[in-house]
Amino acid sequence: MMAHNNKEKVCILGSGNWGTTAARILANNVKSLDNIDKTINMYVYEELIDGKKLTEIINTQHENVKYLPGFKIPENVIAVPDVVEAVKDANLIVIVMPHQFVKSVLETIKPHIIPSKTKVLSLIKGVVITPKGTVTVSNLIKENLGIHDVSVLSGANIANEIADEQFCESTIGYQVEESAKLWQLLFETPNFRLNCINDVIGVELCGALKNVVAIAAGFVDGLKLGNNSKAAIIRIGLVEMRKIAPYFSDSVKGITFLESCGVADLITTCYGGRNRKLAELFVTTGKSMQELEKIHLNGQKLQGYLTAQEVYEFMVERGIVDEFPLFTKIYKICYEGENVASIFCDLKVSLL
Amino acid sequence: MMAHNNKEKVCILGSGNWGTTAARILANNVKSLDNIDKTINMYVYEELIDGKKLTEIINTQHENVKYLPGFKIPENVIAVPDVVEAVKDANLIVIVMPHQFVKSVLETIKPHIIPSKTKVLSLIKGVVITPKGTVTVSNLIKENLGIHDVSVLSGANIANEIADEQFCESTIGYQVEESAKLWQLLFETPNFRLNCINDVIGVELCGALKNVVAIAAGFVDGLKLGNNSKAAIIRIGLVEMRKIAPYFSDSVKGITFLESCGVADLITTCYGGRNRKLAELFVTTGKSMQELEKIHLNGQKLQGYLTAQEVYEFMVERGIVDEFPLFTKIYKICYEGENVASIFCDLKVSLL
Repeated sequence: MMAHNNKEKVCILGSGNWGTTAARILANNVKSLDNIDKTINMYVYEELIDGKKLTEIINTQHENVKYLPGFKIPENVIAVPDVVEAVKDANLIVIVMPHQFVKSVLETIKPHIIPSKTKVLSLIKGVVITPKGTVTVSNLIKENLGIHDVSVLSGANIANEIADEQFCESTIGYQVEESAKLWQLLFETPNFRLNCINDVIGVELCGALKNVVAIAAGFVDGLKLGNNSKAAIIRIGLVEMRKIAPYFSDSVKGITFLESCGVADLITTCYGGRNRKLAELFVTTGKSMQELEKIHLNGQKLQGYLTAQEVYEFMVERGIVDEFPLFTKIYKICYEGENVASIFCDLKVSLL
Repeated sequence: MMAHNNKEKVCILGSGNWGTTAARILANNVKSLDNIDKTINMYVYEELIDGKKLTEIINTQHENVKYLPGFKIPENVIAVPDVVEAVKDANLIVIVMPHQFVKSVLETIKPHIIPSKTKVLSLIKGVVITPKGTVTVSNLIKENLGIHDVSVLSGANIANEIADEQFCESTIGYQVEESAKLWQLLFETPNFRLNCINDVIGVELCGALKNVVAIAAGFVDGLKLGNNSKAAIIRIGLVEMRKIAPYFSDSVKGITFLESCGVADLITTCYGGRNRKLAELFVTTGKSMQELEKIHLNGQKLQGYLTAQEVYEFMVERGIVDEFPLFTKIYKICYEGENVASIFCDLKVSLL
């Protein structure tokens, strides 16, 4: 199901802030890639902006006025409101949408792709940790599309900073090296540098676990402690992330934690972002996390708060609570009323 | 040369901000350690404060009014103005003083110690990198005292935050494990946690190289870039630190860079500290580093700026410049007038 001209063809499913940014990069990069079709379909969940369809605005004004205002989109990006139409002829599918929508989109497109020829790259951060293990977006894609060539891209990046051409890095976690190299060609720019690593689940786990550590970083800020206390928490968090990962999958590599998806995304999440912010407010306002979610996130769940519980239940199931004093403390402070100042008690973590 | 009661005896050479903080910890910890003499001599470079000797002030008011005002020093710390008197009967020597004074102090005490029974712990960050390799404080101590049992302590800590009992960590790099365990007993508190690692030179290298990376972090701040650019620079810096270390010594361990002396000290130095600050001013004021040193450091050398040159000369000598694009860029921006915005060009670093 390649393009009629026998070239490979990219499509992108999702058109939010990050999706639109990714589409801009792809559209510029394909211009100089011989074997890739120059047109990129972008699936846009249709909505009306001042009475006008968002797809029409994008296809005429070449700007996503709702999710990435102020940045021109190259004209070779075609906004398509129908996901089946969007994936037509495409063998390179980029998925970037809120993860609660992923499953139904996968079911919709499945009859319209050729599994053996399709490569998917997921830009979605969304790992659900259960007492038995993990459900990752890459697995969801593999199972629902019946394909095995799924890569993920994750790292210390924010769509607007990339759109603004500030220097950022990211990590591609792959299962098929040749595909990773292709995704790298499609996505890399002088200001957006990519490293590839053969560790899909490691990259995905980093994206989930860093949010838990950011809760602790927010506690440190709320306690008005200095740079060194915060650096200590970030370090211990990194060590616990690296140490718990093999319990989820033997294949996780230690080196992944030194990639952008690991230490860099952790740092940036511990200095900015809403997990850190709400945890700080938890300390300074005395409000519960649920209250703070209501006030600041319209009742949406705070990712790090949710993942902290999932990680704890997993550790209980495996009988490894004692090996992860920071993860345990975060859970107990968030859910069992332990004093936030106790975060530093018993933080004795070995690297092994 | 143990104490007359056959107990081991600690002394501390140096009484600045960090030395005084260390003395307070030691003095409290020895109270509950059976085999350690309860009195701790602290060598104080004598000076007059409002006409009164600093040693007398410390021994009567139990406060170092000049270097750590506001914090009581336990009465079992005895300030001693003569370094030979200070080391008398001591077999556990802690050295914490500006590194330009170390050599003469070592020569002075050498006839008064028993090399085979003496353990030294250095709290000094000071590595000189030459085109041929490194001259570290631990080596200086070994050579000048003729001993081999030298450990070093380094990490993300600032004396005042430790004195203030904010949670901090540090790393003990050791050659003799039993000694490291003893130093850990002597120094650890609930708020000052120590890990021991069999890698003296690795710990010392981290303390030097992180200052070079902090120069790059300051550039990013000066360029008014966001959190992700900064996290990328910190990450690449960490990778280059880890990658260059084995060129100095085969014995360096990769895991050391995940200890407090590594990633944590790097983070804290890239968010605070004068290396970062002066590099930011370098960008925002357009002044040269030498000018900034004159204005802000009374002409004293900025450590990261100096080390950047030393590292570059070492890389040239070894023919490995191309493997370290960030270290190279920092040098060229500081010393060869390259545009600071070029810091992100060619930053393609592999972990191997």
